[in-house]
Formats: sequence, C-alpha cells, structure tokens
Amino acid sequence: MRRFVAEKARNLVAQAVSYPPSSVFPRRTSSPLRFLSGTSTTPLPSPSSDSMAGSDYSSTPLTLQSINPKVLKCEYAVRGEIVNLAQKIQEELQAKPGSHPFDEIIYCNIGNPQSLGQQPITFFREVLALCDHPSILDKSETQGLFSADSIERAFQILDQIPGRATGAYSHSQGIKGLRDTIASGIEARDGFPANPNDIFLTDGASPAVHMMMQLLISSENDGILCPIPQYPLYSASIALHGGTLVPYYLDEATGWGLEISELKNQLETAKSKGIKVRSLVVINPGNPTGQVLAEANQKEIVDFCKKEGLVLLADEVYQENVYVPDKQFHSFKKVARSMGYGEKDISLVSFQSVSKGFYGECGKRGGYMEVTGFSPEIREQIYKVASVNLCSNISGQILASLVMSPPKVGDESYESFSAEKDAILSSLARRAKTLEDALNSLEGITCNKAEGAMYLFPRIRLPEKAIKAAEAAKTAPDAFYARCLLNATGVVVVPGSGFRQVPGTWHFRCTILPQEDKIPAIVSRLTEFHQRFMDQYRD
Amino acid sequence: MRRFVAEKARNLVAQAVSYPPSSVFPRRTSSPLRFLSGTSTTPLPSPSSDSMAGSDYSSTPLTLQSINPKVLKCEYAVRGEIVNLAQKIQEELQAKPGSHPFDEIIYCNIGNPQSLGQQPITFFREVLALCDHPSILDKSETQGLFSADSIERAFQILDQIPGRATGAYSHSQGIKGLRDTIASGIEARDGFPANPNDIFLTDGASPAVHMMMQLLISSENDGILCPIPQYPLYSASIALHGGTLVPYYLDEATGWGLEISELKNQLETAKSKGIKVRSLVVINPGNPTGQVLAEANQKEIVDFCKKEGLVLLADEVYQENVYVPDKQFHSFKKVARSMGYGEKDISLVSFQSVSKGFYGECGKRGGYMEVTGFSPEIREQIYKVASVNLCSNISGQILASLVMSPPKVGDESYESFSAEKDAILSSLARRAKTLEDALNSLEGITCNKAEGAMYLFPRIRLPEKAIKAAEAAKTAPDAFYARCLLNATGVVVVPGSGFRQVPGTWHFRCTILPQEDKIPAIVSRLTEFHQRFMDQYRD
Repeated sequence: MRRFVAEKARNLVAQAVSYPPSSVFPRRTSSPLRFLSGTSTTPLPSPSSDSMAGSDYSSTPLTLQSINPKVLKCEYAVRGEIVNLAQKIQEELQAKPGSHPFDEIIYCNIGNPQSLGQQPITFFREVLALCDHPSILDKSETQGLFSADSIERAFQILDQIPGRATGAYSHSQGIKGLRDTIASGIEARDGFPANPNDIFLTDGASPAVHMMMQLLISSENDGILCPIPQYPLYSASIALHGGTLVPYYLDEATGWGLEISELKNQLETAKSKGIKVRSLVVINPGNPTGQVLAEANQKEIVDFCKKEGLVLLADEVYQENVYVPDKQFHSFKKVARSMGYGEKDISLVSFQSVSKGFYGECGKRGGYMEVTGFSPEIREQIYKVASVNLCSNISGQILASLVMSPPKVGDESYESFSAEKDAILSSLARRAKTLEDALNSLEGITCNKAEGAMYLFPRIRLPEKAIKAAEAAKTAPDAFYARCLLNATGVVVVPGSGFRQVPGTWHFRCTILPQEDKIPAIVSRLTEFHQRFMDQYRD
Repeated sequence: MRRFVAEKARNLVAQAVSYPPSSVFPRRTSSPLRFLSGTSTTPLPSPSSDSMAGSDYSSTPLTLQSINPKVLKCEYAVRGEIVNLAQKIQEELQAKPGSHPFDEIIYCNIGNPQSLGQQPITFFREVLALCDHPSILDKSETQGLFSADSIERAFQILDQIPGRATGAYSHSQGIKGLRDTIASGIEARDGFPANPNDIFLTDGASPAVHMMMQLLISSENDGILCPIPQYPLYSASIALHGGTLVPYYLDEATGWGLEISELKNQLETAKSKGIKVRSLVVINPGNPTGQVLAEANQKEIVDFCKKEGLVLLADEVYQENVYVPDKQFHSFKKVARSMGYGEKDISLVSFQSVSKGFYGECGKRGGYMEVTGFSPEIREQIYKVASVNLCSNISGQILASLVMSPPKVGDESYESFSAEKDAILSSLARRAKTLEDALNSLEGITCNKAEGAMYLFPRIRLPEKAIKAAEAAKTAPDAFYARCLLNATGVVVVPGSGFRQVPGTWHFRCTILPQEDKIPAIVSRLTEFHQRFMDQYRD
C-alpha cells in the first residue's frame, strides 16, 4: 500500500542500529568470504576522537534534548551508519592487513567517481591550475606543460574577473562573465534563450537546494512533493527547514515511471491534511533510480505544476549521464519553453553540478541553479540569501563555466578531450549493463535498467528468516543485508530505506563507478555473498 | 540608553530606501566632487534582469507573503542597498566614462583584499596549482616554474589524499591529513594540544557559523549573545534560523571594551523575557570594531561562559591581523586551557578562514571550525549536518592547511614568503593609522584605533538637519551619509545601522584595504566630501 508519509512519520534508519550477532554467520576463516569480522561486536565509530568517548560532559551546556530537534530529525543515509562502519574497517585494514576477508573497501555508496580512480578531464584541470597561478601564464615553460587552448581559455576567464582577482569574493551570484558563458551553454543545449542574471553559482548543487527549501518552507504545513525513492539530500533539507515531505511513488514495475495520477493523489491527500504543497521535486535522470524521463511525460509534469501553482525544482545534475540510445535528456526549461510557457507561466529552478557528468569533479564543489519565472521581489530574496554566504568558490565557478563550454572542434584539446569524455561515458554504460545483468541473475533480485545517472537500485525480496534476523538485530532488513554485504565483501552500498521505498519492499543503491577492471571481481563477490546469504536465510 | 533589542524589534535598514532628492546637493559639474548623479532618481537595481521588471507574475505561485518570513527578516548590510547602488554606478561608468565625478568605485564595504589589488601569496598559489593538475609534477619544465618546496608540499598533500584524488568528495570533516596539519598548526600557535578530529573544514567560515546556529536554535526562545556592533553574518544567520539575537554593547568610550557586567545584565534581561540564552559570540579581533581583546578580559569571558553554561563561539578569523605592538592575539582555546579548563569544562568553537589574515583568499572559500567540549552524541549531530553537504571544496581545504603551516626557515620559499607577508601586514598597519588619523581630524567624527582586523568604525555626530534630510529620504541617517559619500566619491562604506549600534549614535564601517598608493586620494576625497556635507547640514 502506498500511503502518505509525513516527514516525521517513519524513520526506519533512525532506529538504534546494532550489528548482527556473530552467531548469525559462523566465522569461516578457510573461506575467501567471511560475513562478519571482529568489527561486528564493537560499537559504531563516532566521528569524535576515541579519547573523548565516555568522558563526563555533564557540565557542558548541550544535550540531545536541548539542541534543535530539526537537526535530530534529519537523516543522510549516503554517509550514514554503513559508511561509518566501512571507514572503521578501512582503518583496521590499514593497521592490520589481512584482518578482513578482502583487501580494500569499495565505496559504491556515493556518486564520487574520482575516489574510485576516474581521472579528471585534462583540459579542465589545466585551466584551473593556470587560473590558480596566473603569473606562469606568460612564461615559456608553460607552453610545454599546457595546451594552447587551455592557456587561451585561462586568459579569457581572467579577463572576465574584475582585476583578474581569482582570490576575491565575486558577485553573490557568481562572476558575471562566467554566468554569460553558462547561459550560452544552456542556450546551445536547449535552443532557447538563457539569461546570465538567472544563474546562481553555488558550491555544488546541495547549497542551491537548501537555498530554495529555505525560501519555500515556513513551517511543517509547507509541503514539498518528492519522488520516492529520492536522493536523501531532499528529505534531509526538508527536515532541517522544518517542512513536510509529501511523497509520490515512482512505479518500479514500469521502470520507475512517474505517473501524473500519483502526483494528483498525493497532492490531494496532502491538502486534506492541511498541508500547503509549495513545490515539486523531479530528479531527471533519476537518483537513485536511474530512469530518464520521456519528453511527453515531462510536458505533463510541467502542466501539472502550472495548473497546481507549484515551483518545479528540477534536479538535472545527471544531464550528461545517459547510457541508452533510445533516451535523451531534455531540460525542463526547454520542455516548458517548447510548450510556449515563458517567465510568467511557470516558476522553475534547474540544478546542475560539476560533481556528476563525465567530469565527476565532486571535490571542486561547483554548480549552479538557473532560476526562472520568479517575480523581481522574490528574486531579490533569493539574492539576499545567496549574499549572506558572499559567494561560491571561484575554482568551482570556473569549472562550472568549463563544463558548460568544453573544447570545440578545431581547439587543440578537442580530440583528447573527446576521447577522455567518450571513454568515461562508454565505460559507465558498460559497467551499468554488467552490474544490472549480474543483479538480475541473483535469486530474489530484480533490477531496472540504469538509463542514466550513476546508480542501480535493485529490489531484494528478502526471506522471512532474514527479516526476522534483522528485527532481532534492531535494524531494517535492507540495512541488515547491506551490513552483511560490507562485512563479507568490503563493498559499500546504501540500504533502500535511506532513500525511502514502498513500505514492505527492500532495495539498495549501488553506484556503477568502480573502475571497469574491478567489476568482474565485484560481480563474483556479490554473487557468492548473495548465494550464501540466501542459503542461510531461505525460508 | 542601552536596551534589549530582540531580532524582530528594529530594522532601520529594512525601511524602503529612496535616494536623497537631487535638490539636496545641487549639481556642480565644474567641481571635482559631485554629490548626486543621474542615478539619484532611478530605482534601486534589482539582481534580476531588466527585461523582467514590471512583468506580470501573478500566475506564478510565490509572493512575498507566501515565502518563509525568516528569509524576509534576514538582512545582510555588507552586500545591501549601498552596494547595489555602487554596482549600478560602476556599470554606468563602464558604459559612459565621465558620467560620475570619479573614475572608479572603491569598494571599502567588505574585507575583500584581492578585489582591491592585493596580490596572492605566491607559495600558496603554487601549491594549489600543482594540486589542481598533479600530472605536471614530474615534468622538467615544472622545476623552472615552481619553487622546490611548493613541489615538495604538493607531493606531501597528494599523499595525504586517498587515491591522490583532489576531485573526490572527502570525509565530511575534510581530508584527514590536512586536518592533522591544521591541528599541528594550532598546537604550534597555542602551546596546547589540538585534535584533528575536532576540525571541521568548511567553505569559508560562514557555513560553519550557520551550522552552529542551526544546532543551537530551535525557536525564537533560543537566544545568542552577540556584540553590538556585530558582523551581520550573525544577525542574518540568527534570523534565518529563527532565533533571538541578544545584544551586548561594546563600550566605544574604552576602545570598544567588552564588559562582563554588560554581558550579565543582558543575559538577565533576556532570561526575564523567557529567552534561553544558548551561546556567546565573541569576535576577536573585532569586526567591525577592530579591537584586540586583552588576555585578562578573555579569561573573564571564559569564566562567564563556564558559569552560565554558554557555548562560546569565537570568531577568530582575524587572528593574523594585529597592527599594534602592545596587543597580541590569543585564541580562546589557549586561554581556556591555560586556565586549566579542559574538554569537560567548556564548549568552545573557534572559527578560522583563509579569507582574512595576510593572505586574503576570499574567493577560495576555505576555512575551518575547531569544535571542543561537546559530548560525542552532540558531535555526531554536527558531523551529520556537515555530511548533508558532503564536504567543503578541496582547494579551500588545502589552502586552510597551508595558512596553518606556511613555509619555515630553511625552505626555498621562506624568504620571499616572509617578505610578501610582512609587506602586506605592515602596509595594512600604515593604512589603518593614516585613515584613522584622517577620520579623527574631521568635524564631528571620532574613530577608535584599528588594533586588528581590517576595518575602521568611526562615529559620526550628524547635525539635526542631516538627520531630518535622511528622514525625508526615508533612510537611516548613516545610510544617508554613506549614500551621499558614494555618489560624491565612489567610495563604498557600510552604514553603522547594518551592524547595529547604540540607538541614537551613527557610524560607518570602512575597510583599510585600498592599495596604499590610493589612500592619499581617498583621504582627500573623504575630507572634501565631509566638509561639504557639514557645510550643507551644519545646524
């Protein structure tokens, strides 16, 4: 049954998580796979120092009861308990090699390509380095180290920065010249005009999402329609701002289809509970679900928002990550404009990030939102909130302009750039397919295609015995599975409960990002683990 | 009369600001100074595009009445109306040179040194560039372009980053090896141990302040003791999180002295109004006030916080900006530890930033907070909030480690580094003194010494006639003065009302950051403007 789930209603992951008792998986050191290690009975690692644990803080002012309850309520599963355990195991592996049945932790919990060995795009890094240290631009040695077009681009960018000061705070929306470049990139992508004054450059997409939530949410009576499953940034941000997440369920049976009837039902249910729904979040390509929306479907969504007076928050950070020939990314702005809707018809925010795409520059914290269809007075409020943090980091700003205006045919870097880009994207497509096939071959697992984005989100039909064991271990069944998987293989995935899911179903999210040469080993470890897990728990 | 001023009580700057009518200052094109330009009757520039102004947004969902009222309440004066006007004038100067009685806008509104020509520290930029593009590290040309120790440092830093992946999300607190370096730097500074697990690297200090406010504030019943005058990040962040700013007034007569009796009085007043005071903010060296606290005073403050159970939020971003020989910066952590207070005795957060000091790398958005004296369960909540945004930008993280571990005696860069550092700091000290003396020579102006930080905060005794003119123009008197100053000279300062001040007194904040060769012209323009202003309005 799909039902309305208010922010505070369910919090499966929030329950105290303890590890499965070691008797669940007998220790078999002779086997290449071991389900539980010595770690299993130790407490969860705390981010604070060990030396502090157990100290008496009774004279210091803060207790869990006295801090902001919205902070307590907030959950962020992609860096939650399982990841803490993984970090602890990693430390143990470093301190005592051989202490676990695997050599390394493989972080498939988060879309962090370069942490798994993806190399940065050379042209982008050349330009960034030159902008960081412009005094080498005129030196002869620089010609030998950098491509001609990266040098030229660095000069162009410096000319766009007042006083060439890459170390100065910029305009709160970001450097005007870089916003011009980004607007041109959007125009080239969509075939419709883009206004540089609509661009707000941000430290990755996350602060942009927070900024919009801050604007839209006054109290728990303000609702935000979010897909379920969803990327937990949304549930976390809504919780931190004290609003209500109004879920709409994607239909797993039709490849995570987004049905307007479902949107309408959930909107009505929310209204009947006194919730004023402000906004609709759509993640396209989907995270964690990987589907790419069809243009016709997007048109229905735009009409729904227009009709219901909702701000459309379009998470489009995976716009370059489409892996199937029959699907294509269309920005919601392009779709709205192609329907003849202009500034006055629909309020639309598009989020983009340098962390995703083929570049995967997560550590640079670059991104932007394109804000259209807001009145000047509302725009001023958004600008004010942006200005409180002064500006986003300039390297991230520069990189955001570069991903929207990469080398073109005829540029010295064009061929090597294209080769790097194509190699990454085609490899990602192969990895997605291999992992999808492997998952679908496992007992009780079905997995939709990753048409786009960076994740697979398989459904696991867990035997009753496994669900009982999870209950006994006071954890959600999919968290129990993920923990066992980690302890046995070193592979870190995020339990579906962190993204929310149809109650009674269980999933996990696994990135497609490990380097291609590691995929066969991951597949065989996963397969072996799953068979053993099912042998243990089959009803 | 000093009195309790709740967040919502006064909002002088929030009133609709219109420009002084052009009759106030007759246009004298023959004069080198002109008080008002054609700009004076045009509306305030909106950050949104001109093409949108006046459009009908009635069918889009958001109005000022429907958005979060906390956003409406938030003010951020250092990028407020005066700065918007300055940006507009700057555009006019570019489009039509000679359209104003000055050639350029001089932004003295914000501590943004590199925007005014300060050059970055070479060593820092060398290391950043090498970390951005590590593949040049082994090339022979690199030896000719970069110092040996910057190359060595880049290698060291890359070794500290898992997989050398400067493009990967890091640990949510920042890269462990960089936190080790920062902790060592703090130890060297203070002579007391620092724990890398206490460091949270952030995109500048602002997000760290927001994070703590988010933790501490549940409702308007939660109070934060803030100095008045204060840096408006604090009032803005408290407003955005819905808390109450509990003011304590610094004593201008004793060089912006911080009196414990004042803290006690304001705490009691707040308590009597049902406010639970959670925390004390201290900015040292002071912003906008420039005072450097004496160690004895800091000890009293620490004792006050301990006794009253307050979290001490120590804004120490100007720790390297001290200009007088008889004062020295002491971190609050050092002071607390020297009093024998440890982890269990006082909750203390120290904020540091790469934007200030002699480096002034505002655009890099690097910074950290050192969080001590919180229980492990509270620490976990801080970690969780940090993790929702994944991590701060890696270049900023690297730079934060560099400012806490600059080149040392014997390093190839040491001499040039020291020369760059000393030149900047000694020049800043001279600029502070010159501007302070100039201001003190003006009729009705008194200005305390800038012992530290980057600002002067002179008091202006405005004639009744000027106050009346400001009233007629529906603006605060100091905002009226700042606007006239901008229109006449191109110099941008921030009205004291943006920082709050003892009611009935008027100030402005002016940075000491224009390059030294520009100071004489600024002094003579300021002097000439002020004399003419007083001639116009003298009672």
